[in-house]
Amino acid sequence: MKMYGKYLSKLKEKRPLIHCLTNYVTVNDVANAVLALGASPVMSDHPSEAADISSLADGVLINTGTLSDTRFEAMKTAGRNANILGKPVVLDPVGAGSSKHRTASALSLISGIHFDAVRGNISELKTLASGHAKSRGVDADLEEIKRQSDTAYTAELACSFSKLTDSVVIISGESDTIAYRDEAYAVRNGSHLMRFVTGTGCMLSAVCAAFIASAPEEKLDACIAAVAAMGICAETAEERMMPGEGNISFRNHLIDALFNITEEDIDSKAKVDEVR
Amino acid sequence: MKMYGKYLSKLKEKRPLIHCLTNYVTVNDVANAVLALGASPVMSDHPSEAADISSLADGVLINTGTLSDTRFEAMKTAGRNANILGKPVVLDPVGAGSSKHRTASALSLISGIHFDAVRGNISELKTLASGHAKSRGVDADLEEIKRQSDTAYTAELACSFSKLTDSVVIISGESDTIAYRDEAYAVRNGSHLMRFVTGTGCMLSAVCAAFIASAPEEKLDACIAAVAAMGICAETAEERMMPGEGNISFRNHLIDALFNITEEDIDSKAKVDEVR
Amino acid sequence: MKMYGKYLSKLKEKRPLIHCLTNYVTVNDVANAVLALGASPVMSDHPSEAADISSLADGVLINTGTLSDTRFEAMKTAGRNANILGKPVVLDPVGAGSSKHRTASALSLISGIHFDAVRGNISELKTLASGHAKSRGVDADLEEIKRQSDTAYTAELACSFSKLTDSVVIISGESDTIAYRDEAYAVRNGSHLMRFVTGTGCMLSAVCAAFIASAPEEKLDACIAAVAAMGICAETAEERMMPGEGNISFRNHLIDALFNITEEDIDSKAKVDEVR
Repeated sequence: MKMYGKYLSKLKEKRPLIHCLTNYVTVNDVANAVLALGASPVMSDHPSEAADISSLADGVLINTGTLSDTRFEAMKTAGRNANILGKPVVLDPVGAGSSKHRTASALSLISGIHFDAVRGNISELKTLASGHAKSRGVDADLEEIKRQSDTAYTAELACSFSKLTDSVVIISGESDTIAYRDEAYAVRNGSHLMRFVTGTGCMLSAVCAAFIASAPEEKLDACIAAVAAMGICAETAEERMMPGEGNISFRNHLIDALFNITEEDIDSKAKVDEVR
Repeated sequence: MKMYGKYLSKLKEKRPLIHCLTNYVTVNDVANAVLALGASPVMSDHPSEAADISSLADGVLINTGTLSDTRFEAMKTAGRNANILGKPVVLDPVGAGSSKHRTASALSLISGIHFDAVRGNISELKTLASGHAKSRGVDADLEEIKRQSDTAYTAELACSFSKLTDSVVIISGESDTIAYRDEAYAVRNGSHLMRFVTGTGCMLSAVCAAFIASAPEEKLDACIAAVAAMGICAETAEERMMPGEGNISFRNHLIDALFNITEEDIDSKAKVDEVR
Repeated sequence: MKMYGKYLSKLKEKRPLIHCLTNYVTVNDVANAVLALGASPVMSDHPSEAADISSLADGVLINTGTLSDTRFEAMKTAGRNANILGKPVVLDPVGAGSSKHRTASALSLISGIHFDAVRGNISELKTLASGHAKSRGVDADLEEIKRQSDTAYTAELACSFSKLTDSVVIISGESDTIAYRDEAYAVRNGSHLMRFVTGTGCMLSAVCAAFIASAPEEKLDACIAAVAAMGICAETAEERMMPGEGNISFRNHLIDALFNITEEDIDSKAKVDEVR
């Protein structure tokens, strides 16, 4: 059985600097999640410094939530600059499919930047893959959730989009799918409480960026490790819930768990299956 | 005695999607408060997607804190679109009265959009009603707080502004006033610790939007239920405070309490009196 | 031995209103930190209200993280207006040195506004002092950290920049340096966990603004008190950490500690030494 814990140790050794261009809703949690793991976030979205900051960074995170025109400009500059310098770039196409503007923005980013990984829910990924799917807000719509239980369908979508973009594709759901070209894996860690907290997806995308930046030559395995780590931390967070606690306590336990997770935790608790 | 708990059950059944155009200070707490109740938030403030997102949503929240010109454009589009589609819109005129710009912005929104509910403190509401009151920052000024203990004065102001705008008017204070046209109610739930946490008002406005979106034909009662629910959660949060805890713990307990509150809690703990 | 606790009591008596023009990453924590102490924050960054809000306020905080062009305009207006009205202004030059844009922006602010205090890490302050230092993201780079242990070097830098700007200069690090003209002090309170939380610097700058606004005639001592208070709260937060807790719990304990700290705590726990 393959072990993924070593990617956390690589991260803790390298302590990568992640340039985050992300929405203002969950940005604080994203920064603290990156710090919890031992990496360093730098939040910067001004076009005039996008090249400077992405040049300093070991990886770039692009998240399209609450997108502004200036942040979009900065994303294009940072992403292209990272491509030129050979630094990994991760896309979280938040809400793709929920408006023509978000879909077009995400597609525009994909057409101009090579992403080492793209993470979203099934609606977002299907939107990007097909260019015309519908989405209910930023959550996966119900029809899609039904389909999502169809592991083969999700793996097919992920592999097909991965081959189109040469990105690792991560589709979050009850079970998470991680695919690169013809390979696909399911990670069955996590907690049902994650959907009651804003930003668990945003945090995971940033965590993926930190893992990839620490092992750029092994981006598929780094992403599997990142997804497993987040899912294990969600399980730890759920276990730590006390009577009377709710979604904010779960969020706090989740980030605390990222602070405390070890290589051994990942090795012993990750539930990773090859599905294709 | 009237029971308001059923409006929470309606919310949990409908799980409304709330389009939030809100300030970046408290946006994370607002999203998590909406999620805690079982509704879904979608944070979006780009003018190019304001129509799309508000069309998907069951209700729209407009909050004028840290207002930018582009978010203001998005607010006008989203609010008018929701009016056309018959979806409820809630205004939180944060800081109206503290600058000419905020006052003018709030008044401009009111002149172009019909709001199903407007929630603010006494200074903000008086500013909107009169067009020339002064406010100390975003808090109610002392003179106003004195007046606010004058329930009759507050009810008069709320009813008068309600008749002008056909909005449910919610004036937060030591006791909260909720009025619609000639009717006014006082809700006497809450905690003195609320004033030490940024965003309790912003959260309440979003909670009102979620309640109204779940019972649009009964917007006065839905708002009373929302205000009572928030006040009861503040009481629960205060009860859960441990030695050494402070305002952040209170904030955490408050959102956790929103996650756990039940129809029965509202029915047994709401302190609602008709005051006019 | 000099006692600094009285500056907290002055703050609690005056309850100053602090106009915060700050980044969207840590703004919620900044607002809650200010509230925790008993002061009032007003977050506002629109150029059209910068004069109005800074006129209402007792002090202005300018923080250059995630700077936008409009917020920069608002900063210049608010800062100059506060100068004219004799209200204290504090600068946190987040990330100065990490991009040409941030360095130029911070230098431009310093050239147009008199700051009563400037707080940053050694890289940021060295950048401002020399105009050509390098910085790794928003953290102090390693070379600088080494130098920072050289108390004399840091004190020299702080005093020299203080004489140039007539600002109290606060350099955060393992030990904090506070200087005004020819005087320099080291404050040796704090916790190693602070570097795992985004915004501890931002919060400290806002806390300095609140302390100075409560004792504008004694700004050096007010800043020493602020730095000691924050460091003591970090120690309290570290003591309150339970097994399984991580950086988010530390952040929560830190703000809770600001809520509970007393004049006596500062007087008995502050570790302040004159170093020059």
